[in-house]
Amino acid sequence: MKALGRQIVVEYYGCNPVALNNVAFIKRAMRNAAEASGATIVQEAFHVFNPHGVSGVVVIAESHLTIHTWPEYGYAAVDLFTCGDDVNPDSAFEHLKSELEAGAFNAFEMKRGILDVEGHVPVRHKPFSVPAEA
Amino acid sequence: MKALGRQIVVEYYGCNPVALNNVAFIKRAMRNAAEASGATIVQEAFHVFNPHGVSGVVVIAESHLTIHTWPEYGYAAVDLFTCGDDVNPDSAFEHLKSELEAGAFNAFEMKRGILDVEGHVPVRHKPFSVPAEA
Repeated sequence: MKALGRQIVVEYYGCNPVALNNVAFIKRAMRNAAEASGATIVQEAFHVFNPHGVSGVVVIAESHLTIHTWPEYGYAAVDLFTCGDDVNPDSAFEHLKSELEAGAFNAFEMKRGILDVEGHVPVRHKPFSVPAEA
Repeated sequence: MKALGRQIVVEYYGCNPVALNNVAFIKRAMRNAAEASGATIVQEAFHVFNPHGVSGVVVIAESHLTIHTWPEYGYAAVDLFTCGDDVNPDSAFEHLKSELEAGAFNAFEMKRGILDVEGHVPVRHKPFSVPAEA
């Protein structure tokens, strides 16, 4: 089945709690994960939480990468959603697994946008973005 | 099974293509969906694509809401990820279904962060955020 996109849903367990609570580290890891997958970063949003934990989103021209961390549990919830054939979310998965020093993980992949329409293959990657208007 | 969060993955079909291509409309619909779910918006990122399509992320204190639209197919890929017991992603789902005038949809819900640890219930919502440092 042809689809517009792929989404890998990952649960990383046994991660380095210090890394999970370091927003600068998480931001860099997510940016590098996007680049590793061949994605084009168009915007990002990261937040650190009190007492701890980081949430981060990297909007890419080909969809998005998100992460939410619970340092107290060594756990991170990650979604890697990409569109088009030129981006490989598997590379982002492997990069984050290594960067977070995950001791274990669960992952599954789903297709997004399985459409019964003609002409949607090859899938457009929407590689060109312009600033969003308020 | 107790979990840290819930994630509803939605495929909206047969949506209003004009709405799907209007970033201001999508931004408002996503903000309202977050509010309808009882979530606290902490940051957002929206992009419009050439020739068309919108990507949007609303980072909430309780995780995130994302949308990617393909006006040419009347299709939108939406993820509604919330943590804690005070936020209801079902309300966000219903709000977007109405706003996008979806003629059909597929949705499933998964638990995120099912942890074999003590003391993680009740789940912390991480309601307090501070600006992320570069």
